[in-house]
Amino acid sequence: MSKPEFSAEDHFFMARALEQAERGRYLTSPNPSVGCVIVRDGLMIGAGHTLAAGQDHAEIQALKQCAAKGIDPAGATAYVTLEPCSHFGRTPPCADALVKAGLRRVVAACTDPFEQVAGRGLARLREAGIETSVGLLEAEAELSLRSFFSRLRRGRPWLRLKIAMSLDGKTALANGESKWITGPQARADVQRWRARSCAMLTGVGTILADDPLLTVRDFDIGRQPTRIIVDSRLRTPITAATLRQPGQILIVCGDAPVDRQQALEAAGATVLRMPGADGRVDLVALVAEMGRRSYNEITVEAGATLNGALLQAGVVDELLLYQAPILLGGAARNAADLSLAALTERISGRMLDRRQIGADTRYLLARE
Amino acid sequence: MSKPEFSAEDHFFMARALEQAERGRYLTSPNPSVGCVIVRDGLMIGAGHTLAAGQDHAEIQALKQCAAKGIDPAGATAYVTLEPCSHFGRTPPCADALVKAGLRRVVAACTDPFEQVAGRGLARLREAGIETSVGLLEAEAELSLRSFFSRLRRGRPWLRLKIAMSLDGKTALANGESKWITGPQARADVQRWRARSCAMLTGVGTILADDPLLTVRDFDIGRQPTRIIVDSRLRTPITAATLRQPGQILIVCGDAPVDRQQALEAAGATVLRMPGADGRVDLVALVAEMGRRSYNEITVEAGATLNGALLQAGVVDELLLYQAPILLGGAARNAADLSLAALTERISGRMLDRRQIGADTRYLLARE
Repeated sequence: MSKPEFSAEDHFFMARALEQAERGRYLTSPNPSVGCVIVRDGLMIGAGHTLAAGQDHAEIQALKQCAAKGIDPAGATAYVTLEPCSHFGRTPPCADALVKAGLRRVVAACTDPFEQVAGRGLARLREAGIETSVGLLEAEAELSLRSFFSRLRRGRPWLRLKIAMSLDGKTALANGESKWITGPQARADVQRWRARSCAMLTGVGTILADDPLLTVRDFDIGRQPTRIIVDSRLRTPITAATLRQPGQILIVCGDAPVDRQQALEAAGATVLRMPGADGRVDLVALVAEMGRRSYNEITVEAGATLNGALLQAGVVDELLLYQAPILLGGAARNAADLSLAALTERISGRMLDRRQIGADTRYLLARE
Repeated sequence: MSKPEFSAEDHFFMARALEQAERGRYLTSPNPSVGCVIVRDGLMIGAGHTLAAGQDHAEIQALKQCAAKGIDPAGATAYVTLEPCSHFGRTPPCADALVKAGLRRVVAACTDPFEQVAGRGLARLREAGIETSVGLLEAEAELSLRSFFSRLRRGRPWLRLKIAMSLDGKTALANGESKWITGPQARADVQRWRARSCAMLTGVGTILADDPLLTVRDFDIGRQPTRIIVDSRLRTPITAATLRQPGQILIVCGDAPVDRQQALEAAGATVLRMPGADGRVDLVALVAEMGRRSYNEITVEAGATLNGALLQAGVVDELLLYQAPILLGGAARNAADLSLAALTERISGRMLDRRQIGADTRYLLARE
């Protein structure tokens, strides 16, 4: 199917719908954050984004905004970043609401791969006589929805590796001192990436060395990302700070003592045994299990060992790197342990974004 | 002395003079590359930059351009990035030429710290009734002339450390494979920094591992930078490729065997003995000696050992870093060996420039 032709106005309003989607970014896990704007005669009469799971989807929010303004959306066009749903989940189908509202046209950036929708939302609209088209700003919507699509299409979460380091790739001095490599603006930015994540992933080495909280602190999103600790032999102390924070704790081990498991479970953690052939945690199995548990997006904040193991297991989708304009020297701690025999084996990335954050540079790269 | 007020037109034309200075960037060593534009009634009637040592200075080139166009510069204003010279060096004084041409006004971005000029150029103009002022775009001119000023004011060259590396700060695999970390655009850019350098500095480790030429290859600047090899025990092979390239070779040693010195001298190199207390090369003495030899600007392309030693000796003024969007992992070779006991000892830089060069990112940082 060739893509329909879209007007400049269509592009303009779909871009606004994508902006709306960003407003729900921190709220919707495990649902995708979708944006919707409703337009008549070149004017935006309603706009909305998905709320927390079980609450309104974007289309309903946009229709409610029309109602709140006393504007009847009959005959208008809706721009949505994802095909409207056609099924009764925790909320009634959005497609029905759009039909009932008397819309003339619905433009979707992309179809929903969720098997209970998968084109049926658009079909339902067409059956009701609504003009539909799909594919406008599709690449941008794919980026906006990449973690939701990752879980639905590949059965595993979108995994983001975050590393804060010096220009020479060091995350701490040899003695472990790492407070702080990057500046306060970069550290505040990290909080936003935590907030959009369904879970944070770290290793027991980081727990033992730094005892991090791994929570969202600067603003309230009404939930905390699950903390997942890769800990082959269950060395996590029951006194670890992150265990005492709100939100779920998953500790994933290999072949580990049962008494340690019982102690950690008594401290409130869920322990999963996922041993690989070497008795350590099978990382590929881990991400598949996280997909089954409906995690769309996981951010890793770990040390060189786990960072390298995840990269070499091929489960990292995105690199989020902060670089401070400093050098720490060869003896300091590395960002990722990799064992490469030739330059052709290097881990390479496609630059999605590079910008200044305070004195530091932030890179966002997609794994190639 | 408070700075005079300059008009928008003054700023505009001094910026053009700074652009002219860039045109002579590769030609003028060991002289500074200066730019000059001559302006009358808001129109640029002549422009020029310094040529190779012994040939015209910028002011003379700009006056010649007026003459070539058949325009009499009498009554015009000259904008120069550095105070016109007042002494007979290899060329006659530019101040005299400006007086003779009947200029009404001369604006200089900064005064010349060279002891045979040092304000006398401007004084000579004033004595001849020419209106003079100084300090317009002075910070920009300081940047443009930083290597010349370094030698005159501090008695040592401006030392630039160039490192091509991965995002995790690695310059080669553990096995030494390093062709290529960065892309062809970055490598072409490096040629331009070599071309503006009076000398290239490396260590014997790099000579033994990579056998680099360290010459300017992509374009002809009528000279080759001197190659300086830091080689405490004179292990440089007489078959090293750089020894067979045009241009001077300086090998700087500590306590080294006399027969090795004789062999390298027979191969065309000049050997300097500059031992420090530990029998290795005294790097602080080395840069002072390079100042005495009239090197304004030296670019270092070396390995982690020499890079770290230069940084910790405090003789590095500028970092030129190329980062490829790849990771090579902890086992690969580091950019610089440093021994830091605390984060407060980190090597920090002030960002002068950051840009995309092909797929790579180039940083230029001034040491703080």
